[in-house]
Amino acid sequence: MTSTPATDTAWEALQTRWQELADLGGIGSLLGWDQSTYLPAGAAAGRSRQQSLLSRLAHARATDAEYGRLLDGAQNRSDLSPAQTRMVAVARKNFEEATRLPADFVAAWSQHGGDSYSAWTTARPDNDFARMVPYLEKSRDFSLQAAAYFPEFSDPMDYFIDQSDEGMTAQQVGDVFSKLREALVPLADAVIGAGPPRTDFLGRHYDSGAQLAFGEAVIRDYGYDFTQGRQDLTHHPFMTRLGGHDVRITTRVKTNDPGEALYSTLHESGHAMYEQGVRDDFLGTPIGGGVSAGVHESQSRLWENQVGRSRAFWAAYFGKFRDAFPEQLADVSEEEMHRAVNTVARSLIRTDADELTYNLHVITRYELERQLLGGTLTVRDLNDAWHAAYQQNLGLRAPSDVNGVLQDVHWYFGSIGGAFQGYTLGNVLSAQFYAAAEAANPGLEGDIARADFSRLHGWLKENVYAPGKLYKPAELVERATGQAMTVEPYLKYLREKYGELYGVS
Amino acid sequence: MTSTPATDTAWEALQTRWQELADLGGIGSLLGWDQSTYLPAGAAAGRSRQQSLLSRLAHARATDAEYGRLLDGAQNRSDLSPAQTRMVAVARKNFEEATRLPADFVAAWSQHGGDSYSAWTTARPDNDFARMVPYLEKSRDFSLQAAAYFPEFSDPMDYFIDQSDEGMTAQQVGDVFSKLREALVPLADAVIGAGPPRTDFLGRHYDSGAQLAFGEAVIRDYGYDFTQGRQDLTHHPFMTRLGGHDVRITTRVKTNDPGEALYSTLHESGHAMYEQGVRDDFLGTPIGGGVSAGVHESQSRLWENQVGRSRAFWAAYFGKFRDAFPEQLADVSEEEMHRAVNTVARSLIRTDADELTYNLHVITRYELERQLLGGTLTVRDLNDAWHAAYQQNLGLRAPSDVNGVLQDVHWYFGSIGGAFQGYTLGNVLSAQFYAAAEAANPGLEGDIARADFSRLHGWLKENVYAPGKLYKPAELVERATGQAMTVEPYLKYLREKYGELYGVS
Repeated sequence: MTSTPATDTAWEALQTRWQELADLGGIGSLLGWDQSTYLPAGAAAGRSRQQSLLSRLAHARATDAEYGRLLDGAQNRSDLSPAQTRMVAVARKNFEEATRLPADFVAAWSQHGGDSYSAWTTARPDNDFARMVPYLEKSRDFSLQAAAYFPEFSDPMDYFIDQSDEGMTAQQVGDVFSKLREALVPLADAVIGAGPPRTDFLGRHYDSGAQLAFGEAVIRDYGYDFTQGRQDLTHHPFMTRLGGHDVRITTRVKTNDPGEALYSTLHESGHAMYEQGVRDDFLGTPIGGGVSAGVHESQSRLWENQVGRSRAFWAAYFGKFRDAFPEQLADVSEEEMHRAVNTVARSLIRTDADELTYNLHVITRYELERQLLGGTLTVRDLNDAWHAAYQQNLGLRAPSDVNGVLQDVHWYFGSIGGAFQGYTLGNVLSAQFYAAAEAANPGLEGDIARADFSRLHGWLKENVYAPGKLYKPAELVERATGQAMTVEPYLKYLREKYGELYGVS
Repeated sequence: MTSTPATDTAWEALQTRWQELADLGGIGSLLGWDQSTYLPAGAAAGRSRQQSLLSRLAHARATDAEYGRLLDGAQNRSDLSPAQTRMVAVARKNFEEATRLPADFVAAWSQHGGDSYSAWTTARPDNDFARMVPYLEKSRDFSLQAAAYFPEFSDPMDYFIDQSDEGMTAQQVGDVFSKLREALVPLADAVIGAGPPRTDFLGRHYDSGAQLAFGEAVIRDYGYDFTQGRQDLTHHPFMTRLGGHDVRITTRVKTNDPGEALYSTLHESGHAMYEQGVRDDFLGTPIGGGVSAGVHESQSRLWENQVGRSRAFWAAYFGKFRDAFPEQLADVSEEEMHRAVNTVARSLIRTDADELTYNLHVITRYELERQLLGGTLTVRDLNDAWHAAYQQNLGLRAPSDVNGVLQDVHWYFGSIGGAFQGYTLGNVLSAQFYAAAEAANPGLEGDIARADFSRLHGWLKENVYAPGKLYKPAELVERATGQAMTVEPYLKYLREKYGELYGVS
């Protein structure tokens, strides 16, 4: 490796191909964005056909023999810069992922995924888990077969985790999750035992337009760049990159729950600032984007929770929020607002869960996935295992499958494994990154209370966003925070915050 | 030819290719639609790169040797249905258009087009036609060279007209336009001499949202299908097909001129209803869309003018319009509204012109184009010829190039010829189609006065929209109206309408 990047024609051919693959990806994202935002109802079938055509074209360009030869050639070079070497390594990983599974297998798996999803869309309202058992068994078998094409992973779960959180293993994730559960179950117990804060005012009527304007003003302060993005309305909020400098978010609004739009906006803005912050010269290359599910989620959760649910945040914004909704908040104090958005309660539905109990939902799913792939749990016994785990982790029993094992789509797309851990890894990392940012910039809380996010955003941009995929996730975390992933900052954050709010320790 | 469509594998391969080309076209339209509606300002460069990538991919699929062999095979068959035979003929025409010009020539021409457009964007504000002379000379030469690759056209102008109005010749268009001018110049003189109607109330403040809601309610009544379309805001209004069942329109709003949004909405809805009305089984084939620029414009103008500026229209809608804007229209009568939207005035700018004088702007440009390509006018003399023609046709002289020869972008994209005639052919055909619809459905005016467009839309759908490109334009006109294209219905319509409104004959 050299420090001067190679610039010859072979390298240019790779760059051209990568830019093309990135552009095809961006076009695909536009098809999906439009489908979720503005596509007329009658145009759904035609859009699916366009998407599948584009996927075929992109797959062909991502897997052809010429590209393979370009990658082989680049891997045999010794004159690449570190960034170039990493570009080639990530490209090779993607290439293997796209080529090693036989086309027939991929087609059969994809067909099964569609069938399973379709069955789920009726089994769920019918509250009928039994109907999904044969689909899930097939999904488990397909998943195990897929993992077997990658014998470099001894545990199938490692293969799936590696797809979204490169380099992490089931063992590592399991260790982190055990420590978390051990601390979170008693903490949640204590907080819930202390009784809920006042929340009645959140159920009043809040105008949609004013809600959206408020959330957008906040994320403009955060540093989300509207000249390279926009926010629209969708059924499910998401972030998507439609091109190198086009990173959009979506949200949804409930007029009787202003937290819905606000916190989904803050959450997606975190994802988006990460993507917007990647170095320009990495865009259009294999390393021009967020590095892992866990690190990505750390940014959405940092801006949503560490910042957006902090006392300092409401010190900065409660006045503006009350200016927007003077009648609704006439009898509400800043302190009450802060407490209301930090309500903790046991619940059955992951997506409705609060910051504290959310992880217990995720850990439950992760452990069940691991047992399913490991052969220590059969699909037939999954529902019983679900109930046992919820009893242990949350002290609740779902009265129906729809509030239980059928609630999330993740397992019903045809694949099992690696779908959930990123959510909680993100929470853990959000605190670790925030603590490192605070150590480098003492007094961040004071910044937040003045709605000044420049030091926090600047530190994150330099240490987390700009590198893109230049480093593997574990190396990024070590470089940015000085240590390997650890639960301590997250537990400290939760204990201090909820201890103070609810008078527990 | 047989009446049973062929369904063998060779035919299926063609159909698959056509569907793919249609889908690539739809994806390209989405890239363009998003660029005009919602693309963040900072993302323009990335979008251009995506568009050029998609164009390259689509061009490759539209011109490869395998597709050529499929077309050759289909042209040698005797067992195709009439529709299939026409599909192959249209596909062949597109294939020749895409392949006969050498790639080097296309690249040089395209480069010149970009350079010329770029020069125009500064020459126009600088009011400097002289600067564009060398570009226009090159554009004329490129255009003549392009036409020379199609020796089946003896007149270069015929080649360009045939691209947008298949089968029409410069001679035919010239004959139509001569007759029109002969009638329109004295008619416009008489109408303008009669003095203008009251229009002060159109300059009052009209809320944007209420304007849009009103226009959308009207085109819903017309029959524009919002389940297969939508309307958004853009700088220049347009209609675009993003997929088989996804035909969208855009408009723009001026708060001090409610006619801007309303009539652009009605205009684009006509284009859109045409595209939405094409037979489902033609979609995704070479004949699944509007047949020519002239027929397309006939539909936008029919719904904008024949219907939307009629006395019957305001009988149906004035009450609703006044309900939307009670203060602005408190002192305005239905008759005054109708007269105000039919104001006639001499003006220098084509796009601002009224229904009556608009054609004189178009005829001027058409005749100048024809002379430029025919060698009877040099580019250097174009500006003088422009002034002479405006004096003759409209009795006006542009005080500056920007209000004259530099006003339209059409000549400054690198190509000269065939760009304008469709606008006026559309006006002529709009009246011919309307008259035929009225002959088949006596009393259409009464329908319109009740906001009942079902018979008119039904007749147009059956006779104009559904066939798509099944017939050549001239055959479509004859089948639908019982005669070849003729100016008589249009002149009759104008004379009756403006004679009655302005008391002239």
